[in-house]
Amino acid sequence: MRSEEEGKRVIKVAAICGSLRKSSFNRGILRAAMKMCSETIIEGIEMENIDITELPMINVDLVVNGEFPPIVEEFRRKIREADAIFFASPEYNYSVTPLLKNAIDWASRPPNAWADKPAAIVSVEGSGKCGQYHLRQIGVFLDIHFINKPEFFLNGVEPPKNLIIMVT
Amino acid sequence: MRSEEEGKRVIKVAAICGSLRKSSFNRGILRAAMKMCSETIIEGIEMENIDITELPMINVDLVVNGEFPPIVEEFRRKIREADAIFFASPEYNYSVTPLLKNAIDWASRPPNAWADKPAAIVSVEGSGKCGQYHLRQIGVFLDIHFINKPEFFLNGVEPPKNLIIMVT
Amino acid sequence: MRSEEEGKRVIKVAAICGSLRKSSFNRGILRAAMKMCSETIIEGIEMENIDITELPMINVDLVVNGEFPPIVEEFRRKIREADAIFFASPEYNYSVTPLLKNAIDWASRPPNAWADKPAAIVSVEGSGKCGQYHLRQIGVFLDIHFINKPEFFLNGVEPPKNLIIMVT
Amino acid sequence: MRSEEEGKRVIKVAAICGSLRKSSFNRGILRAAMKMCSETIIEGIEMENIDITELPMINVDLVVNGEFPPIVEEFRRKIREADAIFFASPEYNYSVTPLLKNAIDWASRPPNAWADKPAAIVSVEGSGKCGQYHLRQIGVFLDIHFINKPEFFLNGVEPPKNLIIMVT
Repeated sequence: MRSEEEGKRVIKVAAICGSLRKSSFNRGILRAAMKMCSETIIEGIEMENIDITELPMINVDLVVNGEFPPIVEEFRRKIREADAIFFASPEYNYSVTPLLKNAIDWASRPPNAWADKPAAIVSVEGSGKCGQYHLRQIGVFLDIHFINKPEFFLNGVEPPKNLIIMVT
Repeated sequence: MRSEEEGKRVIKVAAICGSLRKSSFNRGILRAAMKMCSETIIEGIEMENIDITELPMINVDLVVNGEFPPIVEEFRRKIREADAIFFASPEYNYSVTPLLKNAIDWASRPPNAWADKPAAIVSVEGSGKCGQYHLRQIGVFLDIHFINKPEFFLNGVEPPKNLIIMVT
Repeated sequence: MRSEEEGKRVIKVAAICGSLRKSSFNRGILRAAMKMCSETIIEGIEMENIDITELPMINVDLVVNGEFPPIVEEFRRKIREADAIFFASPEYNYSVTPLLKNAIDWASRPPNAWADKPAAIVSVEGSGKCGQYHLRQIGVFLDIHFINKPEFFLNGVEPPKNLIIMVT
Repeated sequence: MRSEEEGKRVIKVAAICGSLRKSSFNRGILRAAMKMCSETIIEGIEMENIDITELPMINVDLVVNGEFPPIVEEFRRKIREADAIFFASPEYNYSVTPLLKNAIDWASRPPNAWADKPAAIVSVEGSGKCGQYHLRQIGVFLDIHFINKPEFFLNGVEPPKNLIIMVT
C-alpha cells in the first residue's frame, strides 16, 4: 500500500454499488467519484469498483471446511485490503438493497473483513432517507466507522450536476 | 378462499423463511408453525411455505414490458392471494437477510403485493433483537400490518420445546 | 362514549403535540385537525387536545404506593379513555421530542394506557423524516397500532394550504 | 486541559446519566466508572458527572436574544469543554429517556456543543437493547463519534460484579 518510490501512502478505497440496474444513478455517483479521485482530488486516493453482482446468495452451507467459495474469498480479500469503503447505497423500501446486504453479510463472516474500516455512504434519494440509517446500524455490529457528515442524498429526479464527495 | 361446503372462511397464510441454510432454526420454527396449524390450532388457517430461494437478485432491468420473470410473477401471485404473512426472519448483522429482503423487494414492485396484509414475525435470536425492527420499518412503506404482540424471539441455543404462535 | 340519543358511536381522539413552542407548526397542524373534525369531517369524531406540558419529568420515585402524581394520573386517564391517538410529532435530532417521550413514558407505566389504541402521526418536516420511525418503534412495545398510510410530513417552510388528515 | 507541570494531556470525560431515579442502576454504572477512572485506570482521564436533572424542558422560546437560560448555558459550556462523552443510557420503551433527550437537544442548539466528540454508551438492560441504536442515530445528526465496540449492556437483574469500561 505504499508507493515506495515516492514514500507516499496511497489510500485504497473499495467502492461498492448496491444496485444491479445498468443505468443506476447510484452507480453513476460511484463512477463520478472514481473519476474525481483519479483526476481532481489530491493525489493519494485510489478508488476501485468492487463487483458484488456475481456473489451467490449468502448461505453458510457453502462454507466448506472453513473455505468460502472462490468468488466470495476474492471479494473478502478485496475488502480486507481496502483502507476505506465507499458505499453507493440505494434505498429500497426504507432499507438497504439485498444485493448490498448480501455482500455485507458475506464479508462479515468470521474473521469479519469490515472491522475497523472508515466508510462513507452516498445515496440517490428514493422513497425516503432512512435506508442509510439501517446501513449505519448494521455497521455498529461490523465495527465500520461511518463518517457522520456530510450525509449525502442526491436528488434522483434532476441529473447530477455538481457532486461533492468526501471520503475520510 | 371460501370452503363452500362448510361456508367457512379459510385464512391463507404465506409462510416465508429468510434463511437458505438447510438446518436453519428459523425454517424449523416455520415447519413447527405449519404443523401446528394443520394439527392443533382451530380449523380455518392454512399455512403454506412460499419458496423464495430461487428468485433472481432484484433488478428492475429484468422487468420487460411490465412483465416480471415467470418465477417472480408466480411469487407475487402467491403473496397477493395470501390473507396474511408469517415471516421467519433471522437476524444477520442487526438487520434482515438479503434472501428475505430480495423477496420483499420483488413483491413490492407496483402494484405492491404486500399492501394491507396482516403479518407476524418470528426469529431465532442471533446477534441481537433489532433485525425485526428493520423489518417493521420496511413494512411501513409496504403497508404491512405487523402485529405488535407477541414479539417472538426464540433462544437459538436450546432446542424449541414449547412454541406459541399467534397469527392475527 | 355513545351518544345515546342518536345511537351513534362517537370516536374520541386524544390529540398530543410534542412541541412546547407557542408558534409551533406542529401545534398548528393539530389545531387545524381539531377544527376540521368539528366542522367538516363526517360527524362522530371528537378530537381533544391533551396538554402534556405540565407533566413532571418521568421518575418512578414519584410513584408512591402505586399512586401517580395527580397530574400524571389525570393524563393517564385521558389516554385510557381515548379511542385513538393523534400525535403531532416534531423531529428533534432524528428522534422524538423529550416532551412527547415524557408523556409516552408516563402513560406506559403499568398498566400501560396506550395498549391497543390506533394512532396516527403528523409532522412538520425538520432535520429529516426519521423521527416518526422512532415513534413507531416505541409503539411496538406499547402496543400502539399506527396506521401506515398516509405518512404525513408537512413542509415547514411554506405555510400549510391544503391539509388532508386521516385518522383510522 | 494540559497538566502543565507534567506535560501530560488530561482527557476530560463528561458523564451523563439518563435516569432520574435515586437508585438507578445506570447511575450506579456511572459512579463505578468514575471511581475506576480515579483509582485504577491509567492516569489521564478525568470523568465528571454532569447534572442534567434541573434543565427545563426544551423550548426555544426560552432562548432570548440568542441567550440560553443560565442553567442551560452552563450545561452547554460543560459539554463544549469535554473531550469525550460517557452516556449511561437507560432504555425506556425501546428508546432513550426524555431526561437524556432533553439534555441532548439543549446542547444541540446552534452552535452544536456535541460536534466531533467521541462518545461511549453503557446501559442496564431493560425492555430490550434497541434504545442505544436510537441514541446512535441521534448522534449522526449531532456529529458524535460513538465507538462501536464494546456494546455494553449490563444485566439489570444481577448486581454488577465485574465491570469493564472503555472510553476511547
